[in-house]
Amino acid sequence: VAVKKGFVHVVGAGPGDPGLLTQRGLEALEKADLIIHDGLLGDAFEKALPRRPMRLSLEGDLAVEPVHLAIAAAREGRRVVLLHVGDPFLFAGGDEDVDGLRKARTAYEIIPGVSAATAAAAEYAIPLTAAECAQGVMVLPGRKGAEVDWRHAARFEGTLVVMMGTSELPAICRRLVRFGRPAATPVAVIERASWSDSRAVVGTLGDIGGKAKRAKVRSPTVTIIGEVVRRSPLLGQRRYKPRRVPKRRP
Amino acid sequence: VAVKKGFVHVVGAGPGDPGLLTQRGLEALEKADLIIHDGLLGDAFEKALPRRPMRLSLEGDLAVEPVHLAIAAAREGRRVVLLHVGDPFLFAGGDEDVDGLRKARTAYEIIPGVSAATAAAAEYAIPLTAAECAQGVMVLPGRKGAEVDWRHAARFEGTLVVMMGTSELPAICRRLVRFGRPAATPVAVIERASWSDSRAVVGTLGDIGGKAKRAKVRSPTVTIIGEVVRRSPLLGQRRYKPRRVPKRRP
Repeated sequence: VAVKKGFVHVVGAGPGDPGLLTQRGLEALEKADLIIHDGLLGDAFEKALPRRPMRLSLEGDLAVEPVHLAIAAAREGRRVVLLHVGDPFLFAGGDEDVDGLRKARTAYEIIPGVSAATAAAAEYAIPLTAAECAQGVMVLPGRKGAEVDWRHAARFEGTLVVMMGTSELPAICRRLVRFGRPAATPVAVIERASWSDSRAVVGTLGDIGGKAKRAKVRSPTVTIIGEVVRRSPLLGQRRYKPRRVPKRRP
Repeated sequence: VAVKKGFVHVVGAGPGDPGLLTQRGLEALEKADLIIHDGLLGDAFEKALPRRPMRLSLEGDLAVEPVHLAIAAAREGRRVVLLHVGDPFLFAGGDEDVDGLRKARTAYEIIPGVSAATAAAAEYAIPLTAAECAQGVMVLPGRKGAEVDWRHAARFEGTLVVMMGTSELPAICRRLVRFGRPAATPVAVIERASWSDSRAVVGTLGDIGGKAKRAKVRSPTVTIIGEVVRRSPLLGQRRYKPRRVPKRRP
């Protein structure tokens, strides 16, 4: 009898809409014996997942790291998917998975995913780069305690994208203004990018903190800061829902 | 008779591997009457595309912008896909498409794609962010003539990703060192990320220019600069081919 060889796929699920999962990501999920995810993906994604494999939804603090569960299952010959929201290597913990997998000499591959940063931009038609106003993009963590040099960020002549900075938003905006970014710089805060209940609040570095608070914006958010926000149909509207695509019956 | 309504989907194709196209991207391609792309996607992608729709491969200088072809076809009631390599809003010209579509009042949506930046990172197991050595990512254009403040970039305490900077690589590295980034900073240059013939050359800011030249690295490339490169199995190898995923027969 041939020995079944275990394998771990570290997969980027995309930002939440199952339609933004890649072909390779879907194939890995379809062939998996075990899918380990962090519970953030929600019902829509759950329903779109293939039904066969065993799934582990990991929420809260665990005594064991997900990657070690994956390694143990792979040693028993299983095909495992470690599923991350967005892209595994962009603020998602895929780096720790890979460290663990390499140390354990477990076979693995990484399947990239659509980041919530580009998904938020696409959904609200805000280009992250544009010939005349943004030569590049800086993607920064907004969570409390993240070590970010906001003085340096304020001086970047391009688009700033802050991931997961919902509660810190007012403090981040104040710092950027204090370090020289004009208070009139346009800002869009996108809540739950790509989900059916996503929404956006727009303003400026000077007023977005208050606007987001009044609109009761909740995590997860992507905040896009820069002149590119002016190019979106968002501008001048407090909240905005993107146009839904017409369905064509086959 | 009901009037057929035209629609334009601005779609991110991902970096080249058709397996990195999203479910929504594939659906848009399958339902399209016309697909307009820039010819960069290559044979593998062509083969994976649905066969039915008319396709226009646009290469070289055209008398008319692709978006205006798309608008004209949409006015005749067609469903059109404007297909971009990577993500439409990250150095891909999707911003100009959207400007044209808005001015023409043509219905559209943008479907984000996997960027070559995250695909290159995934393929060679280089995390773009890692808890202890990279709090964020700066994505910059490497093409000749792009206005980038390399002095500012050199001082970023995170990962730098340079898109499409193949010919400019030695000059970019020299500038980063001149502006204070250590010459020993690890660098990986990834050629044709996600394609079956992709490869990577690794080195440091001090020597990668020469190494890439000797290895005859060609466009398109993604260059990852920063301590995160040390975390990859790449380090210490001049060239590296990622482990291929075992196929399991159903």
